[in-house]
Amino acid sequence: MEIRKAKRADVASIVALLADDKLGSKREMYIDPLPQAYYDSFTQIDQDPNQYLIVAEEDEEIIGTAQLSFIPYLTYQGGIRSQIEAVRIKSDKRGTGLGETLFKWMIGKAKENGAHLLQLTTDKQRTDAVRFYEKLGFKATHEGMKMHF
Amino acid sequence: MEIRKAKRADVASIVALLADDKLGSKREMYIDPLPQAYYDSFTQIDQDPNQYLIVAEEDEEIIGTAQLSFIPYLTYQGGIRSQIEAVRIKSDKRGTGLGETLFKWMIGKAKENGAHLLQLTTDKQRTDAVRFYEKLGFKATHEGMKMHF
Repeated sequence: MEIRKAKRADVASIVALLADDKLGSKREMYIDPLPQAYYDSFTQIDQDPNQYLIVAEEDEEIIGTAQLSFIPYLTYQGGIRSQIEAVRIKSDKRGTGLGETLFKWMIGKAKENGAHLLQLTTDKQRTDAVRFYEKLGFKATHEGMKMHF
Repeated sequence: MEIRKAKRADVASIVALLADDKLGSKREMYIDPLPQAYYDSFTQIDQDPNQYLIVAEEDEEIIGTAQLSFIPYLTYQGGIRSQIEAVRIKSDKRGTGLGETLFKWMIGKAKENGAHLLQLTTDKQRTDAVRFYEKLGFKATHEGMKMHF
């Protein structure tokens, strides 16, 4: 199993993972051909040095994905924050420890890049997720507030 | 009162606002001369087209600040998220509606830039903040999880 930066050729496999999810299935459009908006978005992510869209690959199959971002702020004496979003594990690979492996890779990358903090928000409907993140060392100190346009 | 992008000459005034806060006072170093790290961070923010560090200025005084960020993701069919952090209002200007004015400016900017979502996290210790954000239209649907290194 290898964790690496995503390539353009991975986009359809990543969208398949995003769509194969209770909440994601309502939001994504995993059809053939894939909407061009996904490729345009990939180009933006790929060209931004603060974005790391990653995949876990095993036997030439994409079995996990996540996006790690870095954001510079004046707060915390000009500290860099890292942030995780869009984590998905292929349904038949859940419970195998892959999520933990992906997170440990991202925690390592965040520290290597000098971030002082790693943050994420998780939908309160994902009841198991908070426990998973707490086991990794996250603390649920904040409310995650969203406004959809 | 004018809301505009922050300039290098505003950095000390912004740090003064960040430090004049229950939580911020423990994290920031508002001394003369200001630590170089704040200026280095300003340069990174200023050069990144996805970052808008803004200030509210009245009678040549900085009375508010916030940072609006844009992050590209594959999720939501390749949608752009906008995110707010580091909001501070000068203590003698709180309760004047300035916070609401700042947020309305940022909501407008986020829509103008094509974001589909605006998000923020707020420390559960800031008990009044959740109500303020809910009045603006945010919903506390997520847990905001943090890991400090």
